[in-house]
Amino acid sequence: MDYQAILEEIYEEITPEIGRGKVADYIPALSSVDPQQFAFSIITTEGERYGVGDVQKQFSIQSISKVFTFTLALDIYSKNLYERLGVEPSGNPFNSLVQLEYEQGKPRNPFINAGAIAVTDSLIAHFKDDYKAFEVILNFIRNIADDNDISFDPEVSVSEMDHAYRNLALANLMKSFENLDNEPIVAVKTYFKHCAVSMNTQELSRAMLYLANGGTDPLTQKNYITPSQTRRINAVMLTCGHYDASGEFAFHVGLPGKSGVGGGIVAVVPGKMGICVWSPSLNRYGNSHAGTLALQKFVEKTGLSIF
Amino acid sequence: MDYQAILEEIYEEITPEIGRGKVADYIPALSSVDPQQFAFSIITTEGERYGVGDVQKQFSIQSISKVFTFTLALDIYSKNLYERLGVEPSGNPFNSLVQLEYEQGKPRNPFINAGAIAVTDSLIAHFKDDYKAFEVILNFIRNIADDNDISFDPEVSVSEMDHAYRNLALANLMKSFENLDNEPIVAVKTYFKHCAVSMNTQELSRAMLYLANGGTDPLTQKNYITPSQTRRINAVMLTCGHYDASGEFAFHVGLPGKSGVGGGIVAVVPGKMGICVWSPSLNRYGNSHAGTLALQKFVEKTGLSIF
Amino acid sequence: MDYQAILEEIYEEITPEIGRGKVADYIPALSSVDPQQFAFSIITTEGERYGVGDVQKQFSIQSISKVFTFTLALDIYSKNLYERLGVEPSGNPFNSLVQLEYEQGKPRNPFINAGAIAVTDSLIAHFKDDYKAFEVILNFIRNIADDNDISFDPEVSVSEMDHAYRNLALANLMKSFENLDNEPIVAVKTYFKHCAVSMNTQELSRAMLYLANGGTDPLTQKNYITPSQTRRINAVMLTCGHYDASGEFAFHVGLPGKSGVGGGIVAVVPGKMGICVWSPSLNRYGNSHAGTLALQKFVEKTGLSIF
Amino acid sequence: MDYQAILEEIYEEITPEIGRGKVADYIPALSSVDPQQFAFSIITTEGERYGVGDVQKQFSIQSISKVFTFTLALDIYSKNLYERLGVEPSGNPFNSLVQLEYEQGKPRNPFINAGAIAVTDSLIAHFKDDYKAFEVILNFIRNIADDNDISFDPEVSVSEMDHAYRNLALANLMKSFENLDNEPIVAVKTYFKHCAVSMNTQELSRAMLYLANGGTDPLTQKNYITPSQTRRINAVMLTCGHYDASGEFAFHVGLPGKSGVGGGIVAVVPGKMGICVWSPSLNRYGNSHAGTLALQKFVEKTGLSIF
Repeated sequence: MDYQAILEEIYEEITPEIGRGKVADYIPALSSVDPQQFAFSIITTEGERYGVGDVQKQFSIQSISKVFTFTLALDIYSKNLYERLGVEPSGNPFNSLVQLEYEQGKPRNPFINAGAIAVTDSLIAHFKDDYKAFEVILNFIRNIADDNDISFDPEVSVSEMDHAYRNLALANLMKSFENLDNEPIVAVKTYFKHCAVSMNTQELSRAMLYLANGGTDPLTQKNYITPSQTRRINAVMLTCGHYDASGEFAFHVGLPGKSGVGGGIVAVVPGKMGICVWSPSLNRYGNSHAGTLALQKFVEKTGLSIF
Repeated sequence: MDYQAILEEIYEEITPEIGRGKVADYIPALSSVDPQQFAFSIITTEGERYGVGDVQKQFSIQSISKVFTFTLALDIYSKNLYERLGVEPSGNPFNSLVQLEYEQGKPRNPFINAGAIAVTDSLIAHFKDDYKAFEVILNFIRNIADDNDISFDPEVSVSEMDHAYRNLALANLMKSFENLDNEPIVAVKTYFKHCAVSMNTQELSRAMLYLANGGTDPLTQKNYITPSQTRRINAVMLTCGHYDASGEFAFHVGLPGKSGVGGGIVAVVPGKMGICVWSPSLNRYGNSHAGTLALQKFVEKTGLSIF
Repeated sequence: MDYQAILEEIYEEITPEIGRGKVADYIPALSSVDPQQFAFSIITTEGERYGVGDVQKQFSIQSISKVFTFTLALDIYSKNLYERLGVEPSGNPFNSLVQLEYEQGKPRNPFINAGAIAVTDSLIAHFKDDYKAFEVILNFIRNIADDNDISFDPEVSVSEMDHAYRNLALANLMKSFENLDNEPIVAVKTYFKHCAVSMNTQELSRAMLYLANGGTDPLTQKNYITPSQTRRINAVMLTCGHYDASGEFAFHVGLPGKSGVGGGIVAVVPGKMGICVWSPSLNRYGNSHAGTLALQKFVEKTGLSIF
Repeated sequence: MDYQAILEEIYEEITPEIGRGKVADYIPALSSVDPQQFAFSIITTEGERYGVGDVQKQFSIQSISKVFTFTLALDIYSKNLYERLGVEPSGNPFNSLVQLEYEQGKPRNPFINAGAIAVTDSLIAHFKDDYKAFEVILNFIRNIADDNDISFDPEVSVSEMDHAYRNLALANLMKSFENLDNEPIVAVKTYFKHCAVSMNTQELSRAMLYLANGGTDPLTQKNYITPSQTRRINAVMLTCGHYDASGEFAFHVGLPGKSGVGGGIVAVVPGKMGICVWSPSLNRYGNSHAGTLALQKFVEKTGLSIF
């Protein structure tokens, strides 16, 4: 299949949609991003790369980082991780406290905020230090993206802390149920740091390859997790990767994926490729508007659904 | 792959688990079923059949019928169906009224009870008569299973009506939000009739083939729905097919599937095969205990996950 | 105190507010009522009557009837009644299913719809017939109002049944939890009949006297309930009598009271008097707009708060 | 009436109940209190005092302090206070986050934890300093109790902070809805300080007199709030003073009252007296077991219900 031609066709078709929706505006570092941007990168398990748009432009990966911390925690804790969080879709907005209270402080899955904070907390507990834990997270991202220059934007993570009250409420609630090892503020700060990692679509699509290849990077042959763990991460991405629009995404796109409020969406075609699309304006569910449409077009044109 | 050998291996391994859990006991017709039963059937898109256990033994398909009514309604109403119901996981038990009230009488998806009743109601509305609608549903099931002897058990549907109060509560609530065209009692009665269809695992695995083949029966070449609709039904089965354990099922099995309280579970390997497993004892989520484990073993041994 | 002068002063002050708000419009029999009406009647335990406005004009008492059925059920079942319902404020709209589901079909109190339906059901169960039960209810109302001409408006109760879906949902949900002895439709029909009783403010203020006098009518000396039961009914009126605005009513008026969507509000000054005010236009909580304000003025001018 | 004889009779009757239930055990300072204690004090608006049991024994007033901070905030902010919190019963446990999230960070009333924290925050905002605010609160309590020796127990307030996660979750959630002026930790710390005030039943009954007398201390003639504000505080105590058992308390006791987890309960007979009962063991709602029963006996024996 001529992927480059397909991407270019999509880019042309999607152009009128770029900028529709609303850029995340709760912190200056995100609200000042130019909404008229778009990028789409894919990389096959053979290493062939295709792309259109601003594929080198860095953006804040935000919740996409939850895939990476989940991978690390699953590798460390294996099944014991599920004592602290589940793998069920939440049926509620990403930052809701209601369900967390009803379910005694155990988050539904690793991709809602409470779950991701619990995962980050578990990594801090394992490495016995929040700085060390973040270093491990950053190194893992550099490894899977095969790029040692990847870093995080302290301006983003610091300004997140100024608007952190709801996440602190989630963390304090989990702590009150004894489902947090560290102080809420420490877990939340570290969470914001990995959310503030900056990457471009080329790097992020590359970083998905281990999930397209049973846990082993097909280009470097580095092994990260088992094939079974890989399938399970992909399953959780499919059922829970887009907050309260996960069903819609599975329905319309049909690929395991994860979005971030920075406008990025990563996706995996198991056995075939890693994908990243980016456009900063978000739809009402907090997922990239043009990015979601572009992915939908991609599966329609290529038939690359898992279903 | 030697599927017959794999099924026999699973049967042997699963034997100690058969009967563990609890048979559905809210109506006599279900509670009197012998829990010590098990059957596993697969059929490939080429028509090769494999099976172990009581593959000819009829059981009540119950909620598995929701896949068939959803297919019919999607074919008739296309996208307009989504004005009446969504495709999001509910994050709540299958018969909860809470979410239905908060969301103004619009059920989350076609596989929770409220959604399935709304789907049945839409079919009655289209065919302008509840008997006619049920006839169409039954004929559709006979068609896709390629078996004209399939029928329903009136004892089951009648005794369901004696315990129908919660479903009537759901239907009346939808009606109060004007999301039901017919009288609640009519929609619920018809719903119970299609839940009371009796089939065996051979027939049900056969009935899944159109979903494994883009909407067209690969053996009879009859076309039912489009490839895109097929992918979407499979996606909804994956995200919502097992009530509040849908995430768990996706996580552990990784195939689109749908369970019923009669102990049956159907599943699809897109492009490859239809599957049905049956064992009457249920786990705490209301899904077949031995059936779920057998499917998990099947994907582990064959690697046939979609992820 | 010159009550007549105070009532006339209130009438003058309240006139610009009469008609503000919105007449109940869910059934024709209520929506066709002229909103520009107002009446205020009081009667002391010595039998002195005062009144302004259309004090002879009949209206639909609606939820005010719940006070009377609660009195009858308390007399019959005594403490056993509380196995079926509580006396706590609900913190939710009057017809919500959410709380009823969480609390296993046991309504919070006798004045939300579910609780009143359960009370009516308990009367039907006791008298073994729905017509007999309604006859007893109607006779009780005639007794306490000392007026044998009081009757109900079948047009109202029949047209309520055409919009009964939400109440049927509540009744079916209670039935599913085995907290309803009769068929949901029978309990709901009888409930609508006593809601459809027609009275004027003179009759309703008179009907409150037994609650102002420890359970014994001070004028006829007929005894209905004990002083202790009387205090408890008054307490439940104060905490739960105005749905989700009960706290507001206690805060601003400070008298035990009960409102109906027909625009009537009854209130009691323990030891002193029975009160009824009526004006059909409702505020956003479903309580009479001008009626609530008039009662607030009455306690401000007379100091007759219980606090 | 011979109040002293009545109190002694109650003391004798209640003795077998003292110690039943469970002392608050979430912090050592409370869990180490001897459960076998009881005291009951009343003081009339004429200054006559009666009492039985350990009426001089100091205990932690805990949530009773919310009455005093509510009084101060109402005096300062008048009606504007209700932009930040309501006066409706919550229908939920005292520390639930569910309702607070649904209702956009606006607490239901000043007596659930979230509401009390918001009230404390409003006082800190007004006095521009948390230490100053606490000084004002403490001085107010000393004034109304007419006792300058009243102080707080820093051991209690400090150990509360070690278990403050749920209250911090509430405060952070309100802050995220911009319904908190100060940092969550500051509001919560000050809240714990006024909860840690130590008083005995003699002092607390004395401190209720202004609420029994229209806002003016009948013995010192100091005026604190208006008669209308007084009635409203009493109304909120009646409808919301005992968390999710407020309806039960109104039903069984029928007096405005407020309980604390230290085992104290204050109550008011408008126009007549201030009351305080204390016994450390709590019933399942978190209210003093023997204290609640003693108050119930008191109103039965004296007929001093407001209803």
